[in-house]
Amino acid sequence: MRKHIFNAGPCKLSDRTLENTARAVLELDDNGQSVMEVSHRSPEFEAVIDETKALMHEVMNIPDDFEILFLGGGASMQFAMIPYNFLQGKAFYLDTGTWSTKAIKEAALWGDVIEVSSEDKGFTYIPKGYDIPADADYAHITTNNTIKGTEIMEDMDSPVPLMADMSSDFMSRPVDFSKYAMVYGGAQKNVGPAGATFVIIRKSMLDKVVDRPIPTMLKYKTHVDKDSMFNTPPCVNIFAIRETCKWVKEMGGVEAMDKLAQHRADTLYNAIDESNMFKGTVAKEDRSRMNICFVFEDKYEGLQKDFLSFSSDRNIIGIKGHRSVGGFRASTYNACTMDDVNALVKAMKDFEKENA
Amino acid sequence: MRKHIFNAGPCKLSDRTLENTARAVLELDDNGQSVMEVSHRSPEFEAVIDETKALMHEVMNIPDDFEILFLGGGASMQFAMIPYNFLQGKAFYLDTGTWSTKAIKEAALWGDVIEVSSEDKGFTYIPKGYDIPADADYAHITTNNTIKGTEIMEDMDSPVPLMADMSSDFMSRPVDFSKYAMVYGGAQKNVGPAGATFVIIRKSMLDKVVDRPIPTMLKYKTHVDKDSMFNTPPCVNIFAIRETCKWVKEMGGVEAMDKLAQHRADTLYNAIDESNMFKGTVAKEDRSRMNICFVFEDKYEGLQKDFLSFSSDRNIIGIKGHRSVGGFRASTYNACTMDDVNALVKAMKDFEKENA
Repeated sequence: MRKHIFNAGPCKLSDRTLENTARAVLELDDNGQSVMEVSHRSPEFEAVIDETKALMHEVMNIPDDFEILFLGGGASMQFAMIPYNFLQGKAFYLDTGTWSTKAIKEAALWGDVIEVSSEDKGFTYIPKGYDIPADADYAHITTNNTIKGTEIMEDMDSPVPLMADMSSDFMSRPVDFSKYAMVYGGAQKNVGPAGATFVIIRKSMLDKVVDRPIPTMLKYKTHVDKDSMFNTPPCVNIFAIRETCKWVKEMGGVEAMDKLAQHRADTLYNAIDESNMFKGTVAKEDRSRMNICFVFEDKYEGLQKDFLSFSSDRNIIGIKGHRSVGGFRASTYNACTMDDVNALVKAMKDFEKENA
Repeated sequence: MRKHIFNAGPCKLSDRTLENTARAVLELDDNGQSVMEVSHRSPEFEAVIDETKALMHEVMNIPDDFEILFLGGGASMQFAMIPYNFLQGKAFYLDTGTWSTKAIKEAALWGDVIEVSSEDKGFTYIPKGYDIPADADYAHITTNNTIKGTEIMEDMDSPVPLMADMSSDFMSRPVDFSKYAMVYGGAQKNVGPAGATFVIIRKSMLDKVVDRPIPTMLKYKTHVDKDSMFNTPPCVNIFAIRETCKWVKEMGGVEAMDKLAQHRADTLYNAIDESNMFKGTVAKEDRSRMNICFVFEDKYEGLQKDFLSFSSDRNIIGIKGHRSVGGFRASTYNACTMDDVNALVKAMKDFEKENA
């Protein structure tokens, strides 16, 4: 039986993605070969990757002066590739929690990091009113913080090239690409299964690469020049991304995803705010629409395990909060339905009724 | 209809791998979630990765002092990671064609490369009787050369830690791990689908890592310490590797794969040697069992396209030789059956009868 999946990532994918990928694992179209068997340099697979890129361009309204790459290694590899390619003097990093902290650690290997952080309050808010130094090589932000549950919803202005790790909210809202030099992320939230990383890079950034020896696989130019085919790409993962892009388009595009994300988040945050048992964990104006974090009011803290098993009995899974925050986290990515959300809200209300 | 697939990689996989992976894409066991949805830190997925490692240990008889990692980025990323971690002074590289040439290019970024090469004869043989310098940091070989069609079948002695790129022949024969410090490869030949890289590293090698700043994702220690779970691994790809390992075990283990590989290669090379129309391209004693390369005798060279379409009409695909060699290449990895091989041999004989 299909569960109400609130995993933080990998996470719920659309039925279309799952069904069509399963079919292609048996046979890609009528090729007599699986999508896992077909040569990555065959016309059959080239059609898959070309269509995936075209769909992502269309769905996300990505201008033609950006190149879309599908790489391996995860967003964590990008934490290193960005400074390896672009950091010579100093870079600006907005530190909004675990993932940006990791990105900063890598950047420090190649240059100075100018940092604005919300660590003073445990990363429970998004810093505002700061200045990005105009002489930085680039600025880096993490738009959604899966662990703490905050999100930057605005495509901000930056005097220097802006790089955004959008691993966990890409494709949940329209993005104004004119503000960015590069947008990237691990696919395993709204975009597809784990094992592929999307990198959407403004082509002119290749002119800004620092003159230092860079391993071939870590150069953006390598992958741009070869259309993500410098070496064998993660084929089945890219196929699943294509199916997800098709599904988003059919559902009404990213504008529809945006509305659904708002509706899911509003419904859950309202339930949290109305409850006398549960409460939110971060500044209301910075709440993530992707990762809804909540905890018990102090006097109910002992009921943690009870609520997890109460929910699990209703087929609700993946709501245990990250160990660094505790409590609960309902991750409501694109494929999460109002049926899933309503099941969780009902579980929260019923549990409160029984235990308050 | 299932084709006779001779792709060089990605390549034919066992029916078991395809069917069980397709099923898991719909639902992993009875978890109510797809293998593409389940959290990588859940007990369900930990069971998958743990069993995959245990099966690979068992099937390949890997000693306990080796760690098995599943990473992203392909073998090409290892070309950089090896010297980044281990090259301080000089390293020995055996250059047997395209892939080792690429590995050498990366090593040269960090130190001196002592090279023995078969480039003098277009990489059509494996160099022999050379010495590996005892003061090298390590020695590196590529055991099978997919493009040229040569293979090193012997687990050689080395006075320094021996690193082997076994991307295209791993799991086709027993390996004496006592001779190696590290064995690695892209999965997309005998091991599974593209998108995962296996790294089998002797744990004591971590003590030999050069004291230099290395990006976190490029440190072997990062992945050993976190059991390949430092960041989200390519989950569905690892699942397919598990199914492939199970299939190898059921088929009689790597000893059975070894016999089948020999039988396939003997059958095809015999057909080539007996033919007056086709001929081999490399030194007979160094012929690959995985990639059987052959060309037309000079006077038939104009028939290239005819033979490809003659074969294609018989559902034989993937036999076009690499553009740098020309002619034909039948890649006969583990899942390639004698039925596939016999179909190709018959096509060669029939074509010769009709056109000689």
